[in-house]
Amino acid sequence: MLRFDIVLREVDTPALVVDLAALKRNIARMAAIAGRSGVKLRPHAKTHKSIEIARLQIEAGAIGIACATVTEAEMLVTAGLPDVLLTAPVADPAKFARLAALNRRSPLKITVDHVEQVRAAADVVALDHPPLAVVVDTDVGQGRTGVTDIAEGVALARAIASYPQLRFAGIQGFAGNAQHIPEPLARRAAAGKAADMLREFAAALAEVNLHAAIITGSGTGTHDQDKAGPYSELQVGSYIFMDSDYSRIVDEAGSGPPFEPSLFVMATVVSVNRPNEVTVDAGTKALATNGPPPCSMHGVAHGAIYRFAGDEHGILTLPKDAAPASLGQRVLLGASHCDPTVNLHACYHVIDGQKVQRWPIGARYGASKASSPTEL
Amino acid sequence: MLRFDIVLREVDTPALVVDLAALKRNIARMAAIAGRSGVKLRPHAKTHKSIEIARLQIEAGAIGIACATVTEAEMLVTAGLPDVLLTAPVADPAKFARLAALNRRSPLKITVDHVEQVRAAADVVALDHPPLAVVVDTDVGQGRTGVTDIAEGVALARAIASYPQLRFAGIQGFAGNAQHIPEPLARRAAAGKAADMLREFAAALAEVNLHAAIITGSGTGTHDQDKAGPYSELQVGSYIFMDSDYSRIVDEAGSGPPFEPSLFVMATVVSVNRPNEVTVDAGTKALATNGPPPCSMHGVAHGAIYRFAGDEHGILTLPKDAAPASLGQRVLLGASHCDPTVNLHACYHVIDGQKVQRWPIGARYGASKASSPTEL
Repeated sequence: MLRFDIVLREVDTPALVVDLAALKRNIARMAAIAGRSGVKLRPHAKTHKSIEIARLQIEAGAIGIACATVTEAEMLVTAGLPDVLLTAPVADPAKFARLAALNRRSPLKITVDHVEQVRAAADVVALDHPPLAVVVDTDVGQGRTGVTDIAEGVALARAIASYPQLRFAGIQGFAGNAQHIPEPLARRAAAGKAADMLREFAAALAEVNLHAAIITGSGTGTHDQDKAGPYSELQVGSYIFMDSDYSRIVDEAGSGPPFEPSLFVMATVVSVNRPNEVTVDAGTKALATNGPPPCSMHGVAHGAIYRFAGDEHGILTLPKDAAPASLGQRVLLGASHCDPTVNLHACYHVIDGQKVQRWPIGARYGASKASSPTEL
Repeated sequence: MLRFDIVLREVDTPALVVDLAALKRNIARMAAIAGRSGVKLRPHAKTHKSIEIARLQIEAGAIGIACATVTEAEMLVTAGLPDVLLTAPVADPAKFARLAALNRRSPLKITVDHVEQVRAAADVVALDHPPLAVVVDTDVGQGRTGVTDIAEGVALARAIASYPQLRFAGIQGFAGNAQHIPEPLARRAAAGKAADMLREFAAALAEVNLHAAIITGSGTGTHDQDKAGPYSELQVGSYIFMDSDYSRIVDEAGSGPPFEPSLFVMATVVSVNRPNEVTVDAGTKALATNGPPPCSMHGVAHGAIYRFAGDEHGILTLPKDAAPASLGQRVLLGASHCDPTVNLHACYHVIDGQKVQRWPIGARYGASKASSPTEL
């Protein structure tokens, strides 16, 4: 990345940039961690929205891909990626119809947390087609989606199993509340509570002869603990990129996760009129604001601090004795919260040695081929 | 908007929604305010990134359009919109070349804050083409871009005037620091300081026989004060939509700006398992997080409170005695910070009575026709 300003000379700023070598090292590291623990990986595509990155994850041994929206599922299935799991329950008849159509192309897994969703899924899957695999989503502490008690979960699994066009595939519990807790003890406690509930849920299912073939959940923040179970697979996402948020997380020894920053936003210095400050052309439309601002940088004095300054601008405060930055200089900013930062861009600029590739970012909202107004 | 759930029944959620009647009333109100004051309007397209909305603003009497990026300028000029001003200084040779190309199609105005930018502009504009109009950007308190003292500004104007291929067109000062201050006295003080500096700058230019033909700046938060001058034109943006941020702003009498919310995100209730709470499918990828969360709502109990719950989810806390919301129910959330919310979507769903139109949102980063990887 030392010569990013040369390799990316022709690229317009602000631009989303991926260091391919670092990305591949992160993917290999997580694959090795899972391999040593005997747990499977189902990386989450909501992080990258990229067919190319999902393929790298599958090539490294992932058993399938998780996604957060029906549009993401359509992108992944259409590209031929295997064993796609939609991790978020839906409630629109049109979305259930799209999921059933996808399941006819390639076996799909969906999640539900309410019996109405089971009925809606059963309504759209024809009996002469492959059954749709349905996972019971469990609220393991985040308070967002999922059944909130185990009896309710067992009843839901039974409802799924009662339909021949559906297949009860297992249980999910995503401790989103635990992933971003910087302190190891509090994080481990929240993850432990989630694991306990899933363990108890699986046992309660076994008592009524229902088998949770998959127990899915976890994330980058708690994978190190969750790899020991009860999870059969980990839905890790951010490990591929890391970001200013996950860089705050430490374990009991004070070490961060064993992954390196691979996602950046390249910006240009556009104003140099103030002492010890320069303005760059990457602001709230280029970098997510829900989390710490970019904290790692290349191409500018060590110790520079970024702050947001509107839609299209950020300000770098330079250390007192730093060499001044010059107008037109390129700066590489480590990504702020990675998932919503990716979502702000239409493509990655992927640096592979001296070459640069553009990889599309798909499945953003409302994308349509029409470039002029259309009537619905 | 009462029947939005019926009119928008076929629209996938989350979806960006515009109430066209309210949008047009806002445009007409600002046009009337400007008309009564004898000040011109140059609405800012960074808010909407929409050719259709820019046209409505021109039809209502705006003299031209402001924009924040070269890509926005290209979108507007290509669509035939008149008198486009790029309000942010650039520093890339490639961007200067694109601006010169645009200026050959239709007279364009750009802003600079450094003599290197004047030289770069002069370098790319050929002598046998129309001169490029250049405005001196002034730091009137935001500390982001602009010349920081008046002598420097006068020197820059002289440098512009020294090139036959450039035309000194005026001065700009955007008090971004003032726009969002809720309290009227503090807001007026910040706006007053900006106005004083521009007045002084124009007077200093007159002393050396340079005329600031335009004095451009202002915004929705301070337009009521700035309409009295020294501005010849106001770069108002958010007034067309309003949002949860600008809804906090009041004048001395405690009244808010005379504009109404016209921008919403429609979401679906996807989880109803917790008492007094429901989860909807609009989160940090559908609504900007740099400002207060959505504070106005339709389709759910009065008094509901939204909080962000991840990329694809938000949680509504319902009042204790409220009727429960049902799975699949549609909710219309008033937009959080409008400009970056718009930037998260590919199109508006524009409600015009019983009809719905899709209006594209253009000029987002890195948009490319390629849907597969391409090498640079």
